[in-house]
Amino acid sequence: MRNCKRCGGANPEVHLGYAKLSLCFECFKEFYERKVRETILKYKMLGEKERVLVAVSGGKDSGALLFVLRRLFPKLSITALHINMGIPTYSEECESKFRELVRMVDVDSIVYDVRRELGIVVPDFLKTVYAGRICSPCSTLKRYLMNRIAWENGFTKLATGHNLDDTVEVLFNLYLQGDVLQLIRLKPVLPSTHPKLVAKIKPLIEMTEEENFFYAQANGIPVKGGKCPFAGESRSQERKRGTISAIEKEIRGFKHLFFSSHVKRLLPALERNVELPTLRECEKCGMPSTESLCAFCRRVEIARKAY
Amino acid sequence: MRNCKRCGGANPEVHLGYAKLSLCFECFKEFYERKVRETILKYKMLGEKERVLVAVSGGKDSGALLFVLRRLFPKLSITALHINMGIPTYSEECESKFRELVRMVDVDSIVYDVRRELGIVVPDFLKTVYAGRICSPCSTLKRYLMNRIAWENGFTKLATGHNLDDTVEVLFNLYLQGDVLQLIRLKPVLPSTHPKLVAKIKPLIEMTEEENFFYAQANGIPVKGGKCPFAGESRSQERKRGTISAIEKEIRGFKHLFFSSHVKRLLPALERNVELPTLRECEKCGMPSTESLCAFCRRVEIARKAY
Repeated sequence: MRNCKRCGGANPEVHLGYAKLSLCFECFKEFYERKVRETILKYKMLGEKERVLVAVSGGKDSGALLFVLRRLFPKLSITALHINMGIPTYSEECESKFRELVRMVDVDSIVYDVRRELGIVVPDFLKTVYAGRICSPCSTLKRYLMNRIAWENGFTKLATGHNLDDTVEVLFNLYLQGDVLQLIRLKPVLPSTHPKLVAKIKPLIEMTEEENFFYAQANGIPVKGGKCPFAGESRSQERKRGTISAIEKEIRGFKHLFFSSHVKRLLPALERNVELPTLRECEKCGMPSTESLCAFCRRVEIARKAY
Repeated sequence: MRNCKRCGGANPEVHLGYAKLSLCFECFKEFYERKVRETILKYKMLGEKERVLVAVSGGKDSGALLFVLRRLFPKLSITALHINMGIPTYSEECESKFRELVRMVDVDSIVYDVRRELGIVVPDFLKTVYAGRICSPCSTLKRYLMNRIAWENGFTKLATGHNLDDTVEVLFNLYLQGDVLQLIRLKPVLPSTHPKLVAKIKPLIEMTEEENFFYAQANGIPVKGGKCPFAGESRSQERKRGTISAIEKEIRGFKHLFFSSHVKRLLPALERNVELPTLRECEKCGMPSTESLCAFCRRVEIARKAY
C-alpha cells in the first residue's frame, strides 16, 4: 500500500508514473500549482498589467488552465474565450461545460459561434478537399479566431492549454521531418511579431496530459469527456502517440528531457539564423498573412463553396 | 514464396525490412554498391588524387567498407589501417580477420599495436576511473590514432565504417540531450579544420547494419563474429538500440527519414552559427586539442599510472 508522499495520508488518488510519485488530491493540487507557477515565471509569461484571454475548449487541459490561472493570480485580468465550431451535439456540450466552468471560476467570457458569425460549421469541410483531414481546417480557423478576437479586444496575451504530451508529439514529428520553420515556433512563449498578432503563452506546456486530468478531477472542473467525433479519423495521430509512449517506456522522463533540450539548447541554435517569412496583410480581412489571401479566408471560402 | 525483386530468381537470400525488398545475393551486391556509390557522390566524399586510409576493425561494417571501396574504385589509392587495442583473444582474432581481408582485396595495410607502440592495452583501464565505461577511453584512443596515422602518412581522407543504425542511435541521443556541438559533427563528411586533422568520410552512413551484414556475407568477407568482451557492460546501449527498433517498428523508414532530415534540414540550421571551440596544440604530442593536454595523452597517462 502506498501513501501520499507529502502528507503520508492513505490511499492517494494521484499516481504520476514519470516522477514515481503518489499524492493525495490536496497535496497534488499544491504540487501542480507550484509547477505551473514555476513555468510561468521561468518563461516570463506574464508581466505587469496584462489582460489575458484564455482559450477554453471544454476539455480538461484548457479547463485546468483557466482554473489554475484564476487560483494562482486572483487579481489578474482574465477573460475566457470559447469558440463553438458547430459540430452537432459535441460543440453544444463543449459550450455548456464552458459556461458551467465560467460560472464556477467567475471570470468574464466571450463565446464565438462560427455558424452565427461566419455562416459555416466544421462539418461543411466534409464536402471539400479536407474530407478525411478535417482537423486541419478546424485548427486553422480556431488559431486565427483566437488571435483576432484577442487583438480586436485589446488583450495583451492569449493563453492556451497545450500540454507536454501534445507538444512532444508534435516536436518529435517536426524533428523527424526536419521542419525548422515550425520547430522555432514551438515554444512556451510566442512573442508578437506584428501589431495584429497577440503574444501567445502556454502555461501548461510542462504539465503532462495526466497531470491536467488529475487536476481537473481534483477540483471538480466541468469537462466534456470523450473525443471530438471527427478526431477518430486520424489513425496516424494514435500511432504517433503510441510511438511516444513506447519511447517513454524505454527512457523514463523522455518527454520532459526532450522538451527541455529543445527549449534550452536546440531552439536557441536553430532560431539564431532562420529567416522568418515576411508578413503582409490579407486582402480580404486585413490580418497578417504570408500570402495575399490568408489561410483563414481561403478555408472559409472553401467551406462556403461546399454548399 | 518470394522471388528476387530484380532477377526473379527463387529463394532470395536477402530481405530488407525497411524497403520491403527481397533480393538474391548477386542482385543485392549491385543494389548495395549502387547505393554506396550514390552516397559517396552525393556528399562529395572523394575528389581527384585522393589517398584514402580505411579504418578496419575486423567487424562486418568496416570489412564491407574496404571491400566495396576497392570494388567501386579499383584505381583509388587505398590503404587499410587496423589498430590492435590489446584485448586478450578478441584483438588477436580481429587482427587475423583483418590480415585475411587485406590479402583478399589486395591493398596496402598498416597495423598499429597499442601495446607495442604505447605500452598500454585497453584492459588497463579496468583499474582506472574508466572501469565500467571502458568503451569511452577505447574510442578516444582509436579516434586519435586513426587521425594521427592518417596525418603522419600523408593521407587525404580517413574513411570509417559507421552505419545508419549506429548513426541514428547517436543522433537520437544527441537530440534528446540537445547536444548541439556534437550534433554538428555528426555528418557524412567532416572536413579538416586544422592542418593536423585529416578530413573524415563515412561512405556507409546511409547503409543499415543489416545491409552491411548481408554484403559481407554475400562476398565472403572475413569477419570477426561476436561482440567485444567489454561491450557487454553497456546495458544502456542495448536499451538505446531497443528504443530505435521500437520506433522503426511504429514508423517504417524512421532511421532513413530522421538521418536525411538531420543532414538536409536540421544540420544546416544548427551549423550556421555555432562557434567551434578554438584548437591549440597538445603540449605533449603536438596534435590539435581544445585543452593544454589532449584527451589522448590524458587517457594514456591514466592507463600507465594504473600499474
